[in-house]
Amino acid sequence: MSDSPPTDPLAGSPFLAACRCEPHDRIPVWFMRQAGRSLPEYLAIRGTGSILEAVGDPDRATEITLQPVRRYGVDAAILYSDIVVPVHAIGFGVEIKPGVGPVAENPFRSAADLERIRPLEPDVDTPYVLETVRRLVAELNPHGVPVIGFAGAPFTVASYLVEGGPSRDWLKTKSLMHGDPDLWHQLMGRLADMAIVSLESQIEAGARSIQLFDSWAGALTVSDYRQFVMPHSVAIFDAVADLGVPRIHFGVTTGELLSSMGEAGADVVGVDWRTPLSIARQRVGTDKALQGNLDPAIVNAPWPAVEAAVRAVVAENAGHPGHVFNLGHGVMPSLDPDALKRIVELVHSLDPGGSTPPRP
Amino acid sequence: MSDSPPTDPLAGSPFLAACRCEPHDRIPVWFMRQAGRSLPEYLAIRGTGSILEAVGDPDRATEITLQPVRRYGVDAAILYSDIVVPVHAIGFGVEIKPGVGPVAENPFRSAADLERIRPLEPDVDTPYVLETVRRLVAELNPHGVPVIGFAGAPFTVASYLVEGGPSRDWLKTKSLMHGDPDLWHQLMGRLADMAIVSLESQIEAGARSIQLFDSWAGALTVSDYRQFVMPHSVAIFDAVADLGVPRIHFGVTTGELLSSMGEAGADVVGVDWRTPLSIARQRVGTDKALQGNLDPAIVNAPWPAVEAAVRAVVAENAGHPGHVFNLGHGVMPSLDPDALKRIVELVHSLDPGGSTPPRP
Repeated sequence: MSDSPPTDPLAGSPFLAACRCEPHDRIPVWFMRQAGRSLPEYLAIRGTGSILEAVGDPDRATEITLQPVRRYGVDAAILYSDIVVPVHAIGFGVEIKPGVGPVAENPFRSAADLERIRPLEPDVDTPYVLETVRRLVAELNPHGVPVIGFAGAPFTVASYLVEGGPSRDWLKTKSLMHGDPDLWHQLMGRLADMAIVSLESQIEAGARSIQLFDSWAGALTVSDYRQFVMPHSVAIFDAVADLGVPRIHFGVTTGELLSSMGEAGADVVGVDWRTPLSIARQRVGTDKALQGNLDPAIVNAPWPAVEAAVRAVVAENAGHPGHVFNLGHGVMPSLDPDALKRIVELVHSLDPGGSTPPRP
Repeated sequence: MSDSPPTDPLAGSPFLAACRCEPHDRIPVWFMRQAGRSLPEYLAIRGTGSILEAVGDPDRATEITLQPVRRYGVDAAILYSDIVVPVHAIGFGVEIKPGVGPVAENPFRSAADLERIRPLEPDVDTPYVLETVRRLVAELNPHGVPVIGFAGAPFTVASYLVEGGPSRDWLKTKSLMHGDPDLWHQLMGRLADMAIVSLESQIEAGARSIQLFDSWAGALTVSDYRQFVMPHSVAIFDAVADLGVPRIHFGVTTGELLSSMGEAGADVVGVDWRTPLSIARQRVGTDKALQGNLDPAIVNAPWPAVEAAVRAVVAENAGHPGHVFNLGHGVMPSLDPDALKRIVELVHSLDPGGSTPPRP
């Protein structure tokens, strides 16, 4: 037995410790969509094509992912990606229209469309994703910053395929779900399988955590979520459980779903700003970590108001070691990067209370 | 004392009884936005101008309000209106763009804009609203159908004035709220005063209930809601308390706000489909009524799924007499009127359990 085994440079990561509800010496913080249009350095290299082009170029995707880590000193880097990357890669026919979002010219309508969703082969279909993850890991791990892998959850991905684009009511998606449950579950099963192999490949490439984005799951009733969505989230979290990385699960307007999202197998449950962390903790339980939940729309307010709001989020957590500070949703393009930087500094200056054991 | 005093034709209204948590013999049902683009008879008379033109024409507004009562046999009629009717009427400069929503070319930006929000004089500024209410009351009361008066709550109205149009993040609104709380409260105070006089005038004209729409209040944290919004809702509910009509309060994604919305003074708290009625009841208390909360996006699914969902809503209410069946949000234009009619028939066929006293 060697006296000095190679140490894991991420052994002291406050982010990973918080994800595991273990003690740590500062409150970890990162921001959903921290890489992107809010940053001038992003706009400078992003190019004018689809976001999918930038994701497909490891040079740009790596640099874009690194930019906010450099600027803000956040405690984790999230892979620059999009939830439709895998379905785009297998040729379903989905694009991301600037100013609109994911659009499928030929939406998913019937059983015949299942054939358009073949299994993902990450090495063949999305080698650029793995190349980007490897470069990020090589760059960031030595500095103690873990990379978070990225996947869209089946419901949210399905909603784009079925609606044909962004929706505010998910009418077609819910009609399919209730009108043809068998077909719905087949669609969800295929999308879950894609998420599984994508996440497995990202973890194999060095990602030390993963976040499953079910951004729009909060559009569902609790009953529909548990019947039509949760089994597929369970399958994903189960499949990557043995890989030993913290699994984060997030969506907006999910207040009533938080306990189910934890039950699905997440180690860390993302909370939007609508639900106070103390309430979220009651629903999720004290054995899982929470991520969130500053209202992103307050970031551009005068600093005293922002500071009070940041402190209020931390106070709501009441010193539980399982807290990853984040916004309650992604960074909007108009948010002020200087304010975000100041938020990181403030969070890092606050007492994590991380030595407090989880309350029973 | 006369042997046969004039009886109130609305004395037996199941809607009014449910609003008061009093026993009644069938579950009352109406639909938010029951009048409107989902109905072919609406499209036939609506005209091509702004909705504000139709609202401003008592002939059309009366007919539009009556259409769903005739077609569906719902238990209440909601005045055909819009939340910006008063601010439009006093000349703030807000229009409703088809396919967009309320738009203010010169948004509310500073204290100087307060002058653009003078007090509403309903008899002078919105006589057409009162004329429409009077005609509806004359038409509907003899048939036992009460008219619900309509007002936008200060936050939701303010959000349009400050943003200049519909928003998905309410960034400017929240920045004003936190950046200049004094100005914010002045703006909210003026809008609350407008809602008060508008509601008072509608009640005087015969409306037997009112609904205060704070559609987007659910975008706020609980703390912000209670600090920046709730006091103004309290002022409105207080002002009309003595007029003796049930006061309904509604917004979407308000799961965490339900108790506060009840506390603000509502007799009936509207619940969107995300929060099961049993959970809403825990938050609101058993002494107030709930309104809701079928997911509107399920209405076009095959009937067995719709029927199961309707029965699930009623089962969640567990026989509490304070339940007004409704959707969890407004009727979308693409919803099938035949399905809505069938939902009304189903709800009316179910046991209200209305003789069950409120649980302690």
